Amino acid sequence: MKTLDFYFDYLSPYAYFSWRKLESFCQEHNLTLNPQPVVFGKLLDHWGQLGPAEIPPKREWLAKYCNRYAHLHGFEMNPPKYHPFNSLTALRLSLLEVCGKDQNKVVGAIFNAGWTQGKDIGNPQVLSNILNGLGLNGAALCQKIQETNIKEILKQNTSDAISRGVFGVPTMIIDGQLFWGNDQFEHMALYVTGNDPLEVDKVNASLKNERAIDRKVLGR
Amino acid sequence: MKTLDFYFDYLSPYAYFSWRKLESFCQEHNLTLNPQPVVFGKLLDHWGQLGPAEIPPKREWLAKYCNRYAHLHGFEMNPPKYHPFNSLTALRLSLLEVCGKDQNKVVGAIFNAGWTQGKDIGNPQVLSNILNGLGLNGAALCQKIQETNIKEILKQNTSDAISRGVFGVPTMIIDGQLFWGNDQFEHMALYVTGNDPLEVDKVNASLKNERAIDRKVLGR
Repeated sequence: MKTLDFYFDYLSPYAYFSWRKLESFCQEHNLTLNPQPVVFGKLLDHWGQLGPAEIPPKREWLAKYCNRYAHLHGFEMNPPKYHPFNSLTALRLSLLEVCGKDQNKVVGAIFNAGWTQGKDIGNPQVLSNILNGLGLNGAALCQKIQETNIKEILKQNTSDAISRGVFGVPTMIIDGQLFWGNDQFEHMALYVTGNDPLEVDKVNASLKNERAIDRKVLGR
Repeated sequence: MKTLDFYFDYLSPYAYFSWRKLESFCQEHNLTLNPQPVVFGKLLDHWGQLGPAEIPPKREWLAKYCNRYAHLHGFEMNPPKYHPFNSLTALRLSLLEVCGKDQNKVVGAIFNAGWTQGKDIGNPQVLSNILNGLGLNGAALCQKIQETNIKEILKQNTSDAISRGVFGVPTMIIDGQLFWGNDQFEHMALYVTGNDPLEVDKVNASLKNERAIDRKVLGR
């Protein structure tokens, strides 16, 4: 059984949109869904990028896009009470090492609370209540993530993602093939069913094409 | 008759993909297609962003994505011989003030030469030949764009785009509504047919949500 690594941060509405489809996608294609919480800000720092919420007209466009998308896909969109927010607590609570066999349930509940119910999922007390609502012990799990090794696992997860070439969220990796963004499901389905139209040699050749100019980037 | 402003740079494969659909989209919805060449690098500079080709794993993912997309949409994908390239000559040749009533034909021919035929559309001689192939006088047009006022028009176009909140290409603007990216056609169609699902008040309220944290961005 193949694995689909799902790299995400709760800050990203696109990650939520992908999550809404991933469980059934993985079931249909006999894939093990492996949620990998990562710190989006660290990815941005590493690659020298800005997040959509950091560019004012992009933030505005994105809010409209998400509202339209949700409407067309039949669910309610209410973004987190504060955004951007500190997602570290939510990400740590979502590690396999913390919530174990309940991981998918926890990830789904936090995403839904944040982006459909508009809750403040940067707030540990709110998160603890979400876990209680799943029949888990929110207080105990919030205690557990104070451990240094749990903090280290999230850091390591993020570094590992960067090493694999993850530059944004959501990113799905199957067999080392990286798919970035919520619009990748058609391509992923072709890939996992052995119908990938990718012309590998042609693409590899094009990647060797020379650059004719380089922009002077941000003083680097 | 409403106008659809199409902000583009030949550097962007997504702009090419959108172009391939825009003439029929505008015809179907009774819109005037208004191609607006802009300098992508200046948009990136202004908003502090990097282009996809400036992040190595994103460049690689994008090359694969485009190859798959082209295959699924039934056309050949051969990226420009050099990339990134200096697109200024191509952009200036595509201004309404330069190619007039032939604008759509010129834009289509340059896009196609660059992204389907893999030509070096940063090269003025190649561009001149493309124009000759359309029955235009390539040499005369290449001469015309040396005029200072033509150079100024492209600069002004780019500044105007930034003032309207254009942060990337392709961007389509209809009635001041900004749509960014090649995946916006479904939303645009709903908008122009009076079926926009956008919940304006809700989105405006969410845009007033407070930020809980700010990332320290690139030393700014």
